[in-house]
Amino acid sequence: MLAFSLAQLDFIIGDLAGNVTRMVAAARKAAADGAQIIVFTELALTGYPPGDLLGEPDFLARVDAALMKLCDASRVTPSLYWIVGTPTRRRPGKALENSLLVLKNGQLVLQCAKRVLSACGMFDERRYFVPGPDGAACLEIGGTRVGFLIGGDAWDDDGKDGSLNPLGQLATEKPDLVIVINASPSHINMRRERHACITAASRRHGFPMVYANQTGGHDQLVFDGASFVATPEGIVFEAARFEEAVTTLRLQDGTFLGVDGGALPPVPSAGLPLMEFFRRQIVLGLSDYTRRCGFSKVVVGSSGGLDSALVLALAVEALGPENVIAITLPSRFSSLGSVSDSVSLCKNLGIKLFEHPIRDLVATCEQGFNAAFGEPLKKLALENLQARVRGTVLMEYANQFGALLLATGNKSEISVGFCTLYGDTNGSLGPIGDLYKTQVIQLSRHINEAAGRELIPEAIINKPPSAELAPGQKDTDSLPPYPVLDIILKTLIEGECLCTEEQDEVRAAWAKLAETKEGTALIARVRKMIWKSEFKRRQAAPALYLRPRPLGSERRFPIAAKYEHLSSAIPAFYGGDE
Amino acid sequence: MLAFSLAQLDFIIGDLAGNVTRMVAAARKAAADGAQIIVFTELALTGYPPGDLLGEPDFLARVDAALMKLCDASRVTPSLYWIVGTPTRRRPGKALENSLLVLKNGQLVLQCAKRVLSACGMFDERRYFVPGPDGAACLEIGGTRVGFLIGGDAWDDDGKDGSLNPLGQLATEKPDLVIVINASPSHINMRRERHACITAASRRHGFPMVYANQTGGHDQLVFDGASFVATPEGIVFEAARFEEAVTTLRLQDGTFLGVDGGALPPVPSAGLPLMEFFRRQIVLGLSDYTRRCGFSKVVVGSSGGLDSALVLALAVEALGPENVIAITLPSRFSSLGSVSDSVSLCKNLGIKLFEHPIRDLVATCEQGFNAAFGEPLKKLALENLQARVRGTVLMEYANQFGALLLATGNKSEISVGFCTLYGDTNGSLGPIGDLYKTQVIQLSRHINEAAGRELIPEAIINKPPSAELAPGQKDTDSLPPYPVLDIILKTLIEGECLCTEEQDEVRAAWAKLAETKEGTALIARVRKMIWKSEFKRRQAAPALYLRPRPLGSERRFPIAAKYEHLSSAIPAFYGGDE
Repeated sequence: MLAFSLAQLDFIIGDLAGNVTRMVAAARKAAADGAQIIVFTELALTGYPPGDLLGEPDFLARVDAALMKLCDASRVTPSLYWIVGTPTRRRPGKALENSLLVLKNGQLVLQCAKRVLSACGMFDERRYFVPGPDGAACLEIGGTRVGFLIGGDAWDDDGKDGSLNPLGQLATEKPDLVIVINASPSHINMRRERHACITAASRRHGFPMVYANQTGGHDQLVFDGASFVATPEGIVFEAARFEEAVTTLRLQDGTFLGVDGGALPPVPSAGLPLMEFFRRQIVLGLSDYTRRCGFSKVVVGSSGGLDSALVLALAVEALGPENVIAITLPSRFSSLGSVSDSVSLCKNLGIKLFEHPIRDLVATCEQGFNAAFGEPLKKLALENLQARVRGTVLMEYANQFGALLLATGNKSEISVGFCTLYGDTNGSLGPIGDLYKTQVIQLSRHINEAAGRELIPEAIINKPPSAELAPGQKDTDSLPPYPVLDIILKTLIEGECLCTEEQDEVRAAWAKLAETKEGTALIARVRKMIWKSEFKRRQAAPALYLRPRPLGSERRFPIAAKYEHLSSAIPAFYGGDE
Repeated sequence: MLAFSLAQLDFIIGDLAGNVTRMVAAARKAAADGAQIIVFTELALTGYPPGDLLGEPDFLARVDAALMKLCDASRVTPSLYWIVGTPTRRRPGKALENSLLVLKNGQLVLQCAKRVLSACGMFDERRYFVPGPDGAACLEIGGTRVGFLIGGDAWDDDGKDGSLNPLGQLATEKPDLVIVINASPSHINMRRERHACITAASRRHGFPMVYANQTGGHDQLVFDGASFVATPEGIVFEAARFEEAVTTLRLQDGTFLGVDGGALPPVPSAGLPLMEFFRRQIVLGLSDYTRRCGFSKVVVGSSGGLDSALVLALAVEALGPENVIAITLPSRFSSLGSVSDSVSLCKNLGIKLFEHPIRDLVATCEQGFNAAFGEPLKKLALENLQARVRGTVLMEYANQFGALLLATGNKSEISVGFCTLYGDTNGSLGPIGDLYKTQVIQLSRHINEAAGRELIPEAIINKPPSAELAPGQKDTDSLPPYPVLDIILKTLIEGECLCTEEQDEVRAAWAKLAETKEGTALIARVRKMIWKSEFKRRQAAPALYLRPRPLGSERRFPIAAKYEHLSSAIPAFYGGDE
């Protein structure tokens, strides 16, 4: 019988002392549960991802000191094996490795390093680490042969990355159980991918695999925990999602049981419903980001539209109504509803609403420009002016109240550049910046349903989207209807990465669009809009990542390239090999 | 005798057809010169760095088509070998390689792929490419055995990256000459590093090496050309810097000669003087960025201070006085000189100056806030307000005139967050964002000297730096004097990467500072300021890179990490192994 604890914790980046404390507390609990092993996650000591902190001159010396402290602390649970992720160096001054250490009673028992370093999507581990040496890390613990792997080393088991095959190599050692430590950010496809990949590996090699993942929000990334155990028969255990958990399990005669020897509850094959997934990920990301930046309050401009209403509702859930400040900033083009709908919304949410009209301010600005230019402001310049005056006013509220400003842009707008730089793109964080507009509507309805009452007024959900920067303006004056736009954007930006829930609908609609001349012209136009607005995304508020292909620093397009040559044809998706 | 042409061209990212045309024109010239080989640069076909364009669904199909066209075009010079960099795939749908092709008279003669992919600093090639297979690429051309390498494959010749050693492998084939194609961005240390590294390699293996590099500005990167030939005795040829050149050389009885058989002029060991280097790199980067974004004009806020004066002078050199628009935006705290010095400056530069006072606008805003808050604006909020009103006004000028706004922040300010987000950080490009304040002064003096007259008025150069956001405010109210601040910043940000010209002075001054209690307290304070302002840099104008450790997307620090635990001690620099 082997008892082991999965410590799915929220390790703070750079907080070496705090992370040691977190581990010690979890180890005490594990020991009290009778565990022989406690599994922490990838780079648990530094927090993940530490980024260029790893290159700070004294950081590694501090990591070494913290590691000594941690090793010493392992004496408090003399018979417990601590599985810990940390950066290490083979020699001072030499390259770093992303390592897994096994500590026990003040001793380093085993050390191995990650070999398949992630360099795609959100990762740039090659920037910091060199691959670990060949070899398998195995240890006999209480009569069970336990193998160890780190992150991608457990995924890549058919030698994709050059000739590396760490999992295959480990399999030759015939372990009874393999423990994989991870720091795997959450997005809509991630749970399914993890389960499929690790179950397939378990089935191929015939041993069970324990997958430990951290939790918590780190800048744009949110880690969802959801640590699990895979056997050749499937997933037999899954820890809580989006929260910390230290769970002790037993492996007894080839079966996984609870700490008390009882059967484990079945794991549902479906994860959270998509909208509930978005809600929980955004709430956690928003809450952690705000606190970790040293703030408790946020400020949000309430336009009377749906994007800001949703951001306000999510912020209230993340931080409490007393910490959310709304400001309505009507201009001469604002509809009557823009203020009154904000009033109902803020009443429903129980938050304070400031009314700060910008009519006179914009008029004063405009007069100055008319005089300076000897002609009236161009249409676009006037529209941008209003957005920027709002952005400036909102930042003053943030500064005055010591609060963070949240940006309210959604992925549809930001993708096509339907936003004003230094205006509505202002903000420390964009909670819904990776959510398409059609999903903004769905999530708003979901939030009302979950609350069992109308948090976000139906009047806001149902009004035609408008930036209200010109008389009678509607988003559809410049853009196709959002259901059509979102089909195009999902295909162009995420293509083959779309999640199962969305794939069929998107592919069918895209195929229909691509059949007609108007459809292909529209696709080409949208494509050009995406390329031409790269410069805005470079300076926009960082968005919380929710999907496999977010905008922002994970999308690395040149600004000044010659895109026009490329936008005439529509790309072939969903057909053949390429 | 072997004659070869180095085609140091400005390949535009994404402009496949244009890049083919550029290559064909250069090949015609090379053939007319009697060359047997023409050497283009790394990823010449797509432009470098193509970034995520490589992942666009139809891009690679277009690359394949362009490559067919290029191969076909090579028939115009039937006896010329074309050495071309391009992304390739071994099979459709499979991973990409960063390849070198040898084309001749419509045939693919040789193909090899880069093995040491760059993943540090400004590079993320691991994101796009897999390493090429083992092996040496050699070809007998006109009785000369020519070997081929790509970028970092020629640098890493002692097996640093795992066990890869492409140069050593190639050496076993005993080539008479090795051609290396590159796309090597320029910074203050780069020329020296390239010369040292390639000369050492040439000396170790006893063969001459030809290093071809592209030129031109691509977003924040500037490529300086300066292609060269290294022999075991040293550098025997260097092409022009910061400009295109197609140069034909002869290798005759082991000696490199000009196209006419004459001796080559000696290559000076020193490069451009530091200030002249900055001037040329900024002017090229600024000019290329503006044109490639589809603009001809720029707008710059002229504060009467030195940063904006220098940006204006550089913009005039890059784009011509008719394309540069200055705006002075005096507030109630502006000194008298802020307008009058701007007037003299713009007169000297021959550019139009708008005067757009913001006094009343700020006062109107302030009244609104006082009423809303029931208390006066906090000091910082009022200072930020002025900066943001200026940022908004400047963007209106840019929008109205169809011009790009240039940001005027320097590296010292941006490093410590001494700037207002959505205010003076606004801009499409920051031409001096990688230049420390003390160097802003030096470069300004250099520009006057080079012009032989006072382009930037001495009154501006000599006035104490001030943001003029509060009565009588000086930068030294919040910051140490810039010479001290810059010593600290250079050490903390660039440490061991400092260029030779700066090293001794910086190290000596740092050591002196670190001796005293006040000095160490100051260092800790500055360090904290750097960490705490990461969020501003994430949304600031992209800066032109000039140094090995620029700010911006090449500095990947988390925003919400726990830095405070780390800032109490000063890091140990310049001593021992670490």
